[in-house]
Amino acid sequence: MSEKMQRITLASRPVGEPTDENFNLETLDVPDIGEGEVLVRNHYMSLDPYMRGRMDDAKSYAAPVPIGGTMEAGTVGEVIASNHPGFAPGDFAFGMLGWATHGVGKGAEMRKLDPNLAPITTALGVLGMPGFTGWFGLMEFGRPKEGETLVVAAATGPVGSMVGQVAKNLGLRVVGIAGGAEKCKMAVETYGFDACIDHYAFETASDLRKALKAECPKGIDIYFENVGGKVLDAVLPMMNPFGRIPLCGMIAWYNAGALGAEASAEALTGPRMWRSILVNFLSVNGFIISNHFDKYPDFLRAVGPMMAQGKIAFVEDIADGLENAPEAFRGLLKGRNKGKQLVKLI
Amino acid sequence: MSEKMQRITLASRPVGEPTDENFNLETLDVPDIGEGEVLVRNHYMSLDPYMRGRMDDAKSYAAPVPIGGTMEAGTVGEVIASNHPGFAPGDFAFGMLGWATHGVGKGAEMRKLDPNLAPITTALGVLGMPGFTGWFGLMEFGRPKEGETLVVAAATGPVGSMVGQVAKNLGLRVVGIAGGAEKCKMAVETYGFDACIDHYAFETASDLRKALKAECPKGIDIYFENVGGKVLDAVLPMMNPFGRIPLCGMIAWYNAGALGAEASAEALTGPRMWRSILVNFLSVNGFIISNHFDKYPDFLRAVGPMMAQGKIAFVEDIADGLENAPEAFRGLLKGRNKGKQLVKLI
Repeated sequence: MSEKMQRITLASRPVGEPTDENFNLETLDVPDIGEGEVLVRNHYMSLDPYMRGRMDDAKSYAAPVPIGGTMEAGTVGEVIASNHPGFAPGDFAFGMLGWATHGVGKGAEMRKLDPNLAPITTALGVLGMPGFTGWFGLMEFGRPKEGETLVVAAATGPVGSMVGQVAKNLGLRVVGIAGGAEKCKMAVETYGFDACIDHYAFETASDLRKALKAECPKGIDIYFENVGGKVLDAVLPMMNPFGRIPLCGMIAWYNAGALGAEASAEALTGPRMWRSILVNFLSVNGFIISNHFDKYPDFLRAVGPMMAQGKIAFVEDIADGLENAPEAFRGLLKGRNKGKQLVKLI
Repeated sequence: MSEKMQRITLASRPVGEPTDENFNLETLDVPDIGEGEVLVRNHYMSLDPYMRGRMDDAKSYAAPVPIGGTMEAGTVGEVIASNHPGFAPGDFAFGMLGWATHGVGKGAEMRKLDPNLAPITTALGVLGMPGFTGWFGLMEFGRPKEGETLVVAAATGPVGSMVGQVAKNLGLRVVGIAGGAEKCKMAVETYGFDACIDHYAFETASDLRKALKAECPKGIDIYFENVGGKVLDAVLPMMNPFGRIPLCGMIAWYNAGALGAEASAEALTGPRMWRSILVNFLSVNGFIISNHFDKYPDFLRAVGPMMAQGKIAFVEDIADGLENAPEAFRGLLKGRNKGKQLVKLI
């Protein structure tokens, strides 16, 4: 009898928040590997907000997951079998092997990990795609300068916490926005932000803006944008002339869906947004990190030493078992996680 | 009896389109000049869309014109008296002397013109602020590459016609949008655009988009944005990955006013706009040319030779007499002018 594996496929496209019915947990045989391929027993998978977008059938930067297809995810695990010269059984590897206990990938598209240098989970968070996203977006499109003020939402997330910590190291004033007092405490105490504002404490964008003004007396020079919604509405009018907005997500609008998104934003109209960009000479740059993987070595060179010097903290939330991934994913979309959300698969 | 002059002041702030009641034509004595100042008999003044913004009392990149203050404008004329070593009576000079037959300016803030090099009116249009705006925005934020497709609205205006002609010279496909068949003909025949679409012929953004798609088979790489409204709504979903949007105006929304603007844009919501920027990795940069006057010599060095080689055409619309400036200004906001709108003052 061949070895069995489990995976979660997309059963149907969600309307709003994904429900259990949108996912299907399947048991199947572990597949054979072909030429140049590697079989991995996944130890951890990553959960990230972008996955919500992949569940919709809307034109976006990446093709949607097809109905019946395995949900996408970054994974780390141990190589069991290899037809690729770069990998041998017992090696640890990062790959995009999806919501699954095992996966087969092309060796050329995987990356070998040294578990003695850093815990393998960091390849999914602080040293992986989220950390790289934060560092790259800040440096490339944020163009930080000492003494400036930076605001980042989802401050304790793996992207936001990287943005804030790198900016602090460069001498900026860093103000986070997070959901709940506990996360705000973490932003200041664990990640060293100058201040962090609990957006749950403010019902309207204008109230949130008042609180931001108290913490950003010189306005905002960089808004690292990954949430949209009320936070964006609060921040936009506070941007200083020549401000920069690296834009890599709008999680607050994700569950609204591709078309329904409009309904949730009475206040933030297109013309008002456009006018803000114009009158303050803002630079808004949308990006997705997969277009910039050529810069990944630069990231490791820049952030690796900061990690080694203890200047970059990270926190992980680990859900246990593939079957609990959908609930952990819903929690992520609602901000229930405190650090980088992972799922333990072994 | 001292010499008399006329000026137009802002009598009240307009709601929507400016009416005659918003302006006041005054006759007063020509003022004396102080240290470092120059008195000019204005021959021409410029009318530009940005002036509509100055009539509102909203936070913007420039202070509003105060009630009772002279309306702002760029002017060219002959120096009558000078307390500045750079200017002598009989010289021609460009200045920001406002809607007025005469004006006193600081010599340090004026520019001497050589009427033998180019007609002095060009200092208000093709070789002045509008032409410079088009060239700078295209080169700095548009980052044009041969073979790409550029779209610019207000194609026959002094900004749009410069953008299109420079882009054509760089080997881009250039598609204009203009109001009316006559302007479209002018864009193609006078300015050498590859095509021009009459936005009056399309009631909705989606119909306009269909027409654009026919002329932009490879999508749009650069949208030089100076109008907002229906055109923006049509263009945004057509932007190619890594597209660039230099943003220097939104004339379609100006008359709507700072707060009323929302009403005119049912379709183009903030989230939809933000999503377009994100999913196509767009670069949107707001700018106003007055922040970049240090690059003006570069502009003259780049465009001067193209002018001399007959590669840059320009068209001027000249209204006669200061008293006709308000009506010409309303015409400008409605797109009734065909070329750069000037007012002859002598």
